Amino acid sequence: MKNLTPFVLAFVFPVAASAFEALPKKPPVPSLNPVTPAKVELGKQLYFDPRLSKDGTVSCNSCHNVMAGGDDNRPNSVGIKGQHGGRSAPTVWNSAFLSVQFWDGRAKSLEEQAKGPLTNPIEMGMDSHDAVIARIKSIPGYVEGFKKAFPGSKEINIDQVAMAIATYERTLITPDSPFDLYMKGNKKALSASAVRGMGLVQSVGCTSCHSGPNFAGPLLPEGTGFYQKFPTFPGSSYDSKYELTADEGRSGVTKNPADKHFFRVPTWRNIALTAPYMHNGKVPNLPEAVRVMAKTQLNKELKEDEVSDIVAFLNSLSGKFPEQKMPRLPGSDGVTLVSE
Amino acid sequence: MKNLTPFVLAFVFPVAASAFEALPKKPPVPSLNPVTPAKVELGKQLYFDPRLSKDGTVSCNSCHNVMAGGDDNRPNSVGIKGQHGGRSAPTVWNSAFLSVQFWDGRAKSLEEQAKGPLTNPIEMGMDSHDAVIARIKSIPGYVEGFKKAFPGSKEINIDQVAMAIATYERTLITPDSPFDLYMKGNKKALSASAVRGMGLVQSVGCTSCHSGPNFAGPLLPEGTGFYQKFPTFPGSSYDSKYELTADEGRSGVTKNPADKHFFRVPTWRNIALTAPYMHNGKVPNLPEAVRVMAKTQLNKELKEDEVSDIVAFLNSLSGKFPEQKMPRLPGSDGVTLVSE
Repeated sequence: MKNLTPFVLAFVFPVAASAFEALPKKPPVPSLNPVTPAKVELGKQLYFDPRLSKDGTVSCNSCHNVMAGGDDNRPNSVGIKGQHGGRSAPTVWNSAFLSVQFWDGRAKSLEEQAKGPLTNPIEMGMDSHDAVIARIKSIPGYVEGFKKAFPGSKEINIDQVAMAIATYERTLITPDSPFDLYMKGNKKALSASAVRGMGLVQSVGCTSCHSGPNFAGPLLPEGTGFYQKFPTFPGSSYDSKYELTADEGRSGVTKNPADKHFFRVPTWRNIALTAPYMHNGKVPNLPEAVRVMAKTQLNKELKEDEVSDIVAFLNSLSGKFPEQKMPRLPGSDGVTLVSE
Repeated sequence: MKNLTPFVLAFVFPVAASAFEALPKKPPVPSLNPVTPAKVELGKQLYFDPRLSKDGTVSCNSCHNVMAGGDDNRPNSVGIKGQHGGRSAPTVWNSAFLSVQFWDGRAKSLEEQAKGPLTNPIEMGMDSHDAVIARIKSIPGYVEGFKKAFPGSKEINIDQVAMAIATYERTLITPDSPFDLYMKGNKKALSASAVRGMGLVQSVGCTSCHSGPNFAGPLLPEGTGFYQKFPTFPGSSYDSKYELTADEGRSGVTKNPADKHFFRVPTWRNIALTAPYMHNGKVPNLPEAVRVMAKTQLNKELKEDEVSDIVAFLNSLSGKFPEQKMPRLPGSDGVTLVSE
């Protein structure tokens, strides 16, 4: 049977493939925050502006680098004053397809997510949302930008800041990965190894969680998260090697002991670009991430050729990144905004 | 006389204006490092890549932000682990017109400058240039990029890294400021106040140092710096208020006591975008910078209407920033490159 596996999987693939979906080119958009070009442009400026952090060193892009895989390729993120966060930054790419944000799902939308890091003392460290608004108002180009993005509004407020950033993030979609092209009929888009991997992630059981167009579970209504316990099978040597049980995950938000060690199922899209892996970024490379997940979530030990086929499939999920113009950050008229 | 000043200056301006030059659209290019599109593109990727710092958090752009005024709008810069440098980051915009780099002129070229921060322990903190090269070589897209930028070369080396970054920096030119348009004949490009300021910077004496197309002194051969003592007239209250004499400047490089407190004359271009001011970034805004310079360098106390006219002129030096496409940073194939 062992030698037949690739053949068998290739054979059954056309049936099993119905579990997969190509990535739509447009994400869901909340009716209260329609996408407009002015809002995208303003959101992009805010996203890249380190002056939204207390000491002017950290922007959204510092930890969610859209020039790369949408994260910071670090185990955990570094905020102002060299402070380290406790979790690994999730990618911003295709996050518009997620129905909750953060590893523990504590924000129900991109808008709500955007407000958090601004005032988190170990991230951007602003004293308050009022302090964020005061700084934005002191930059004449932003006053103009908000007028264009929110016509008729009298005052700049934090909800608008979040709406603009979220709107920019809704443009960060990576369609047309080799996998997507394959799904659309180009059977040459995937290597034989990737096709075997595509079968394996179904037969091994990975896709019981990593389903849907973003491989992060089914598309659910905004605010409804798709969570899974990690590790589902505790007790392997990986638990201590990678400190997998130190973080209690979603129960920290809900205070419900039943949510202990539950995390939002992360996307597989562009996963080859977002090492290191897991909520704590302790797993250094993709083959090891595959081994860890098979063992801790499915209680399976994969053969190395299976690992490498699954990695080939995961590699095929790196999409086409839209060309983006660099934003120009508006000036502050010869006045410094940070003093520390 | 006091009330006549604006008129008199406007009147004498056509003569005095010969001291000024519009910014050329192309900077000098060393014959050993010609500009090619492949080198510009590679240099841009390297410039924006935080993986060139030890912990993956600091890129060239972190302190020399080309989406803004080419600096970090901070008193001093913040490197890895939240460490603060001793001086304020000079702007990268138009730095290709400077004949030496750094405040103390310790690098004779953009190429030489680019190598410094990579291994400075309080900036990007790489252990060695070899460590930089090892990291770059572990990123397949860079191996390809260096082949295109340096065809025929067998090995990636630190000189190529510096040449690519310097080549990108030579594209960072901001022509067509209101001042430049005025110099080219559009007399409506400057306000009456800016025109008065244009006269004042000559009559007060600022342009004895801030001359040339970059307002940083005459164009000199690469490696020949244009330095000035700061403060030239020590003893004012500004010395202690802004700690102007704490940094000994160029003598730290030459070990020559005659160079004590000498600094490279900085550019005025885009100065309204690069607050705070001076080598130590202690002066918080542009009007105060004008007052400080007049007193410490020329022993003059300006009237507030003169300060505001000079500021209007300085504001007219913000140029036209070229549209830039965001670089895509090549991935590291599912392997983390930083562990701390």
